[in-house]
Parts: sequence; C-alpha cells; structure tokens
Amino acid sequence: MRIVLPGAETRFIEAITHGGAFLSVGGPRPNTMTIGWGSIGDFWNRDVMTVAVRPSRFTHEILEREGEFTVSVPAADRPLSRELRFAGTVSGRDEDKFRGHGLTAAPAKSVGAPIVGECALHFECRVLCRTEMDHMDPGVLPRFYPDGDLHTLYLAEVVACYETK
Amino acid sequence: MRIVLPGAETRFIEAITHGGAFLSVGGPRPNTMTIGWGSIGDFWNRDVMTVAVRPSRFTHEILEREGEFTVSVPAADRPLSRELRFAGTVSGRDEDKFRGHGLTAAPAKSVGAPIVGECALHFECRVLCRTEMDHMDPGVLPRFYPDGDLHTLYLAEVVACYETK
Repeated sequence: MRIVLPGAETRFIEAITHGGAFLSVGGPRPNTMTIGWGSIGDFWNRDVMTVAVRPSRFTHEILEREGEFTVSVPAADRPLSRELRFAGTVSGRDEDKFRGHGLTAAPAKSVGAPIVGECALHFECRVLCRTEMDHMDPGVLPRFYPDGDLHTLYLAEVVACYETK
Repeated sequence: MRIVLPGAETRFIEAITHGGAFLSVGGPRPNTMTIGWGSIGDFWNRDVMTVAVRPSRFTHEILEREGEFTVSVPAADRPLSRELRFAGTVSGRDEDKFRGHGLTAAPAKSVGAPIVGECALHFECRVLCRTEMDHMDPGVLPRFYPDGDLHTLYLAEVVACYETK
C-alpha cells in the first residue's frame, strides 16, 4: 500500500470479518450501510478497496450516480455493535440513518460522501471500475443468491486513509 | 481473516506493491507468472484473494480450465528479484519457467497447482467467481489497456495459507 496508515488494511479486514464496517455514500440524501465483505490491495498501481453492493440496495443507486464512498471502521474500544446492526437491517429508503440513531455524517476530506463521525479509521474511495459477478461457483450461488440480485463489485481507489480522535 | 497466518494479508499486499509475487497454475503443463496487483479480504464469509489475469496470457487458459492457483511470496531476506523479472517477462508458451531458472514447482497441500519452493509464504486458492472488468474509469483505461485485453478478475477462496522453511 502507498497512502494508507500502517496496519490499516489489517484493521479493515478484521472489521469486516468480525463486526462490520460502515459504507457511506453522499449526494442529496446521504446514506450508510453495514458491510461484512470486501477486500483491499493494489490494482493499476493504486491502493484499491473492493466492496460489493446488491442492486436492490438504496446505496446501490446512490453509488452508481456519485461514484464515491467512504468506509468507516469502529475503534476497538467502541465497537458500535448496535449501530452496525441497525445500519445493516434498515433501508435508507425508509429511514434517514444519520438522524437519531447515534451515527453522525461528518465531512470527508477528499470525496463528497460523508464519514461516520463515531468511527476511528476512515477510507475515502473513488470508483475506478464496476463489474457484475459472472460465473459464480455453484457452491456459493444458491446460498447467497437464491433470488438472484447478485452483488455489483466496485473497485475503488483509496484517495485518503486516516484516523480521527 | 479466518485461516491465514497473522500478518499474511499484509505481507501479500506489501509483496505485490513493492516486488511482486508468483501466481502458479497446474495441470499437464504447470506455469508461473509474476503479479503486482491483487487484493485480499472476505466475501461470502470466506477468506478471498482476488487476482487479475489478462486473457492473452498463457496462465489465463490454464486458470480457466483448472480453477485453482497458488500465490507464493518471497522471504524478506531472499527477494528473488531476478526470478520475478524473469517470470513476469517470459511466456510459459515459449519456455518452461520451472526448468533451469531457479524456480521449483513444489507440491501444494490442497490444490493441484504447485507452489514456488524458493518462496516463504504461500496461499492456495480455488476460484469462486470470475468476472470481466466493465465500466472502467477513463483515467485508467488508456494507460493500462491501449489495445483492450482487459484483465479477468478471479475471486478465489484461500483454502490454505502457510510458511515454508
């Protein structure tokens, strides 16, 4: 990695594997959702984070339009478990998740999407490539996609990575 | 991550960003190539490594057929720079890279593809999903794909991860 903090990639992977992280999008009606999947590495000689969002999600239509998002990771001593459950079960179509649920949309540094102010580690990302998941293994397909709605993969450059507080 | 060694994901990302790693495939005519791109994380609640291989590569046709590969990372005190340059410039169509170039195809534990015996850290991977890169950012496209030949992305489960020596 080039621009990220030492250990940031490990903290991202640990977060999504064990508790979750917040993926936030901006525009006229900002939203955040919980992600438990993703990856981080290098493509096109840039730091790249890959996230997966189902087309049925409210976040999907915003991300398609805005092309930018942030990922915010809670601190170890403030895991935000209740907030992660909330953001992962309620749709932004039905409720403004940044109002009255302990999640603050704070300004990011380099992208229009907000960061989650209660978190400790933030990645600001610009989409470089989007792709559908084709040719899925039959061992994965029925369990995670019984009704279709296959995730869109977004490969996005990490344009900023920092801690707050 | 679930099965990988502590710090393995960081060592993978560092390797591809700074020196490169070997991606090896098996079958009747095993081959290895140098990769400088990739990512690691979690999808479908599994440890997943993503690699990118251009359709023009000899490795591509083997990977399409076999569906398995390994990634081998050199030790810090034995960076294998000459071997990485070699494996990244010569095609397996023209030469057997595992003969006479200081690279040994050693048996893997869980997949048919070999590992590179001279390396220190190994990931054994089974492809779960392959996809073409669509909707590429115009800032990326002309520089890396002036003649098309867009990479195929392989999202693969890490079924084993270990050190040798």
